[in-house]
Amino acid sequence: MKIIVIGASGTIGKHVVNALAEGNEIIKVGSKSGDYQVNIADAASIKNLFEQVGPFDALVSTTGDAYFGPFKDMTEANMRVGIDSKLMGQVNLVLIGQHYINPKGSFTLTSGSLADDPVPMAAAAGTANGALDSFARGAAIELVNGVRINTVAPGVVEESPAYFPYFKGHIPVNMHRVAQAYVKSVLGAQTGQVYKVL
Amino acid sequence: MKIIVIGASGTIGKHVVNALAEGNEIIKVGSKSGDYQVNIADAASIKNLFEQVGPFDALVSTTGDAYFGPFKDMTEANMRVGIDSKLMGQVNLVLIGQHYINPKGSFTLTSGSLADDPVPMAAAAGTANGALDSFARGAAIELVNGVRINTVAPGVVEESPAYFPYFKGHIPVNMHRVAQAYVKSVLGAQTGQVYKVL
Ligand SMILES: NC(=O)c1ccc[n+]([C@@H]2O[C@H](COP(=O)([O-])OP(=O)(O)OC[C@H]3O[C@@H](n4cnc5c(N)ncnc54)[C@H](OP(=O)(O)O)[C@@H]3O)[C@@H](O)[C@H]2O)c1
Ligand SMILES: NC(=O)c1ccc[n+]([C@@H]2O[C@H](COP(=O)([O-])OP(=O)(O)OC[C@H]3O[C@@H](n4cnc5c(N)ncnc54)[C@H](OP(=O)(O)O)[C@@H]3O)[C@@H](O)[C@H]2O)c1
Repeated sequence: MKIIVIGASGTIGKHVVNALAEGNEIIKVGSKSGDYQVNIADAASIKNLFEQVGPFDALVSTTGDAYFGPFKDMTEANMRVGIDSKLMGQVNLVLIGQHYINPKGSFTLTSGSLADDPVPMAAAAGTANGALDSFARGAAIELVNGVRINTVAPGVVEESPAYFPYFKGHIPVNMHRVAQAYVKSVLGAQTGQVYKVL
Repeated sequence: MKIIVIGASGTIGKHVVNALAEGNEIIKVGSKSGDYQVNIADAASIKNLFEQVGPFDALVSTTGDAYFGPFKDMTEANMRVGIDSKLMGQVNLVLIGQHYINPKGSFTLTSGSLADDPVPMAAAAGTANGALDSFARGAAIELVNGVRINTVAPGVVEESPAYFPYFKGHIPVNMHRVAQAYVKSVLGAQTGQVYKVL
């Protein structure tokens, strides 16, 4: 299977690459690192990536920025960071990628537990996450040729200690469990699912 | 109570106005109709509305556009209609309105059942809905002075027959039930809730 991993060098992405490496061709992509470069916030850059990489069997995205900060000072511009990167970046990977993916292929996007288990400072990230989960549900029933789509929604992960102070009482999630959710999406057969990893 | 209803003239909005009218001062707002006009897709227009209306106790939004069309042809521009109007329009009512609302006030936004019960042609609307539900959960835990926020998520409503062909097997929702969900949000005491009306 030819699998594109966008965000392959990241905290989550590198575990996904390891978990899927055996028996598959992994195309690693980042904004600076990897076999190919893309800026997911730019639709033209995404189209260019697919033109270079050619047909593929699965795309996993473990990338996307969002703003963290107090709600009382939050502005439209703050909110638009997550809209343009985490949300529309990943949405565009699917809107554009659907024209390049092989039959029976799959898309796996990353949302996160903040969609329904909020913490202070994270309303913008939670908004992007909830949007992505619903996007996947809506896309799943319209994608053709057996193409599937799911999201993985992890809680704060054990290898991101910088976030722990913002996630009081949350048990950081084991990287193996996180990576296996992506494996389940790519190598399994379900579609329109949100795989919560808590 | 001084209650601003954005979208007061609409299919849902006019029932909300009727249900809340007794004993309250209702400020009706639309893009063309009502006591005041606003374009929710324009943050400056929203700020101008709050400057004109002054402090208030509750804001209800029953407005917001989104694109409907086949997923295989969907573009970023199609998706941005719902992002800019239904999602960011209503988000901006809260981000800006939090600085004008009275203590113990409330925001009630409209999302919809498409967030988790998708139909074909509606991935963009579902995305906006899911985003709004998560936005409300995130905002609820940070709003100060007892200010609350909820969303109402109706299924297709009985007074919108033009949508019925797209909602096969969905039972159109009774307007009284829809309006009462807004009453529950405004006159009740809960926050961070999604009131599904199905
Ligand atoms: N970490 C957590 O605890 C956690 C929990 C739940 C959800 N998530 C979500 O999981 C995703 C990944 O998080 P992470 O902590 O693994 O991130 P990370 O360690 O910061 O890694 C980000 C990855 O994305 C790539 N990247 C950055 N900007 C990009 C762009 N504009 N276009 C394409 N690729 C880009 C980076 O590669 P380059 O360096 O080459 O740019 C890197 O491979 C995010 O959506 C995050 O919100 C994270
Ligand atoms: N109808 C349904 O079956 C249904 C089901 C679930 C969810 N919803 C959601 O409920 C909301 C209202 O739906 P509806 O069917 O009641 O809509 P509608 O009948 O089309 O009414 C829309 C209302 O919004 C106002 N409006 C339009 N553009 C505006 C703008 N840019 N700024 C401020 N106000 C504006 C209109 O007033 P003017 O004419 O003065 O502009 C009107 O009062 C939408 O978010 C919709 O997605 C509807």
